[in-house]
Amino acid sequence: MTLKGEDGMNGAEMLLRTAAAAGVEICFANAGTTELPIVIALDAIPGIKAVLGVFEGVCTGAADGYGRMTGKPAMALLHLGPGFANGVANLHNAKRAGTPLLNVIGEHATWHRPANAPLTMDIEALTGTVSGWQRTNASVEDISGDVADAIAGALLGQISSLIVPHDHLLSECSGTEIVKTKFSFAPVDVREMERAEQMLRSGKRTALMLGRSALRKRGLEAAAKIKAATGCGIVTETFPGCMDRGAGLPRVSRLPYFPEDAIAMLSQYEAIVIAGAHEPVTFFGYQGIDSYIISRDAEKIHIGTGGQDMIAVLEYLADAVGTPRGTVMDDQIFASLDRPDVPAGGLTGEKMSLVVAALQPEGAIIVDEGITSAFPYYQIAAGTPPHTLMTITGGSIGYGMPCAIGAALACPDRPVINIQADGSALYTVQSLWTEAREGLNVKTLLCSNRSYHILEMELARAGITSPGPNIRSLVGLDGPAIDWVKIAQGFGVPAVSVRSTEDLARKLAAALADPGPFLIEMIL
Amino acid sequence: MTLKGEDGMNGAEMLLRTAAAAGVEICFANAGTTELPIVIALDAIPGIKAVLGVFEGVCTGAADGYGRMTGKPAMALLHLGPGFANGVANLHNAKRAGTPLLNVIGEHATWHRPANAPLTMDIEALTGTVSGWQRTNASVEDISGDVADAIAGALLGQISSLIVPHDHLLSECSGTEIVKTKFSFAPVDVREMERAEQMLRSGKRTALMLGRSALRKRGLEAAAKIKAATGCGIVTETFPGCMDRGAGLPRVSRLPYFPEDAIAMLSQYEAIVIAGAHEPVTFFGYQGIDSYIISRDAEKIHIGTGGQDMIAVLEYLADAVGTPRGTVMDDQIFASLDRPDVPAGGLTGEKMSLVVAALQPEGAIIVDEGITSAFPYYQIAAGTPPHTLMTITGGSIGYGMPCAIGAALACPDRPVINIQADGSALYTVQSLWTEAREGLNVKTLLCSNRSYHILEMELARAGITSPGPNIRSLVGLDGPAIDWVKIAQGFGVPAVSVRSTEDLARKLAAALADPGPFLIEMIL
Repeated sequence: MTLKGEDGMNGAEMLLRTAAAAGVEICFANAGTTELPIVIALDAIPGIKAVLGVFEGVCTGAADGYGRMTGKPAMALLHLGPGFANGVANLHNAKRAGTPLLNVIGEHATWHRPANAPLTMDIEALTGTVSGWQRTNASVEDISGDVADAIAGALLGQISSLIVPHDHLLSECSGTEIVKTKFSFAPVDVREMERAEQMLRSGKRTALMLGRSALRKRGLEAAAKIKAATGCGIVTETFPGCMDRGAGLPRVSRLPYFPEDAIAMLSQYEAIVIAGAHEPVTFFGYQGIDSYIISRDAEKIHIGTGGQDMIAVLEYLADAVGTPRGTVMDDQIFASLDRPDVPAGGLTGEKMSLVVAALQPEGAIIVDEGITSAFPYYQIAAGTPPHTLMTITGGSIGYGMPCAIGAALACPDRPVINIQADGSALYTVQSLWTEAREGLNVKTLLCSNRSYHILEMELARAGITSPGPNIRSLVGLDGPAIDWVKIAQGFGVPAVSVRSTEDLARKLAAALADPGPFLIEMIL
Repeated sequence: MTLKGEDGMNGAEMLLRTAAAAGVEICFANAGTTELPIVIALDAIPGIKAVLGVFEGVCTGAADGYGRMTGKPAMALLHLGPGFANGVANLHNAKRAGTPLLNVIGEHATWHRPANAPLTMDIEALTGTVSGWQRTNASVEDISGDVADAIAGALLGQISSLIVPHDHLLSECSGTEIVKTKFSFAPVDVREMERAEQMLRSGKRTALMLGRSALRKRGLEAAAKIKAATGCGIVTETFPGCMDRGAGLPRVSRLPYFPEDAIAMLSQYEAIVIAGAHEPVTFFGYQGIDSYIISRDAEKIHIGTGGQDMIAVLEYLADAVGTPRGTVMDDQIFASLDRPDVPAGGLTGEKMSLVVAALQPEGAIIVDEGITSAFPYYQIAAGTPPHTLMTITGGSIGYGMPCAIGAALACPDRPVINIQADGSALYTVQSLWTEAREGLNVKTLLCSNRSYHILEMELARAGITSPGPNIRSLVGLDGPAIDWVKIAQGFGVPAVSVRSTEDLARKLAAALADPGPFLIEMIL
């Protein structure tokens, strides 16, 4: 089917029609004058819902959350260089998550750019830091093809950034064809599969290390078959983007954050098949510790890195290692239902995790930016009803609240629980307003420990035991303590503060019974 | 004097000692693990105060405000690529203001960088978008020289960005010399001065268009002499960085925002001498309107663009055109004291401006990010007691609250009044916490019109009179209305809400009598 632009259609309308035809359904936007033609077109072209973020980090983080859950790109509409720059940190997380995402950035009119107006920046230098695909549109006739190419690029699991000059958005392009997005995965690489099969059957202690779509239900089920056939371990990286887990789903070990623990975990393997995960390396460089966590003596192979569908790759491998579909597999492979009880007493990161695991509904989406407070949660929640977990893939803080917005809009029938560190929450605190405006089913569990506690842990590692005033000033978030209840209410989100596990459990259960946004400040 | 590093001194300490020796007194920081050696060194090296911003846009905006007021660089300490990216938007404003500013960015250890750890980015690509000087440190022995060069670069009125690998910060460098910053302005260009003098004496209607330090008291006094001798006009750009003004100081006409008005203002001149200002161009490209506001028939000359001290340039020119120092000049040149009365009734942008002008104390620093609400303020405040005005130089919203922090720390004996639009305030709302922690004398007048009103004006220009739901969603900040009192209180800043001019006047007068931070939500 070839659509043609209607009479009088301009570049902005063509842009949106092409995106809508390719399946784009949502646009997280903070637009300015150069993007106004697109804002106006959003009301003329059906099929794309506009959601306002009152800071661009909210828009890009929401697009990341939406893309992680659906596997298809949301559009982020951003204003010139400064607007894009404000979204870079969360785009970095999206890049590391392998999220399909389409940025559209308005640029000054081509004839105005040489004037070096106040907002002029080198937008391409900025987009280049996070994009797998990028282009500056050259004419109104090219807009539809550019959008189609951008979306095809995004579907590979990367960020596409299309910069469109204002005059091209305004130009008429009636009669121009609407280009259809062409996308298909590369075929499975048979020789690579043979090498992976050989490694899995070698008798060496082998791990299958999963990332990206390999961590969704179908990928995990294929991995479980491979484990049943070969006895391999199933592991994931420290910060997986989006994984299905819980009772009835395969157990997956998660690489610990600190290098000694991570090295200890992987040292039990002599060979590693990496499927969609990054090469595991230490988060920072620590003197005397190798950056690379996999022992240099171990064998390793990356599979499915040539644009293949990772689900197809794992299912092929599962067939190859010879577990017939339908094999019954045991509790060693699949998690059984095992919810903790609500503990008693004052709140800690561990007790907070126990409460969440005790109460989280089946189908919940857990957005974990709890940082140090949520370290225990992964283990504790292993046997809860099936749910989806997202984590801070790129280490760029401020991802949690925006990501929760995107997840809630992607899956309106599933409750979102955002376990959120206070220091990180401050980065994109404006997200609360979008939660309120859109009435999203997001429960924010705000871990108020009033410090950048990860830095306190790093200081302790560096041997600093009695910090001076400047250290305390840069690591502490007390003085004044932030009143998260007032902040949430100020943005339109109802909120309460709790100090005990019993109170947390009561307030969380009540909040989960209601479909709107809610914030619980947990004084840790 | 040559200082030597003490025994056991590391790169981080050397970095700070070099900066302190060059006069750096303050560090606006949001540090992570790669910057911890600098955080630790801040307690070991005297002379630099650390101020925490809980988002990097706060840090860079505060460094901008500090640099605008003092003419010397603050340090912004930022964490890797994502931390720097979060600071880019306000660095863009600082770049357009000509603010001296020193960024220090921690990078992964040199040996860790190839591992492509989660936070790895192309930091140099990011710093390149805003920096006039940038370098990645190559060894611990080079750190002191790099810092000295960076500060010399900043003193030219630009942004310097120094990227320092973590291992270099930790390495010992005892015995290495502390390099002294060498900086001097270029000499006045005598031939350029002759051309400017000729233009001013040509009998053509000539304007002197001032920017940067030409807008501070000494520059303005030199400009006033030139006006007295030649009858030239004195104008400034739409968004000057930092200007002294008010009763007893020379009157300066400000270029209007919308192009028709700006063109009308400048069309009265046949020749323009530009001293420190940008070439005046329209803020956006508007179809059918030239980007360049100065008529193509008019003559123009830029002076002092070769690294000269703009004050020296203007004083040289004043001497050249022949007004002897000490000449008495009339009210046509200098503003006389003329405060408005407090008006009555409901609040509008104009009435808010009248209240501020009626009450602002002598010596006040006015940070104007009122956008549309504050359009009338400049004219209305022309005859108030002497004060300093800062505006949104680069058009990148979210500059006001951070800039107010920097100004308050630069000039602790002067009250800061931040006229702040709501949409812009949301970008760096976390600034309120730093105001509270540091107990800053900042009064925020929050213009709550619950919309991106500038976009409503642009939509009207584009002929959109009945916006549809997506337009309304992306331009309106109502639904829900933000409760600024709760938000301010949540961050530790006392606040009230007002709806009338009388109430605003009462609350502002009371707030000005107390030296701490305060926010007044003005329902417009």
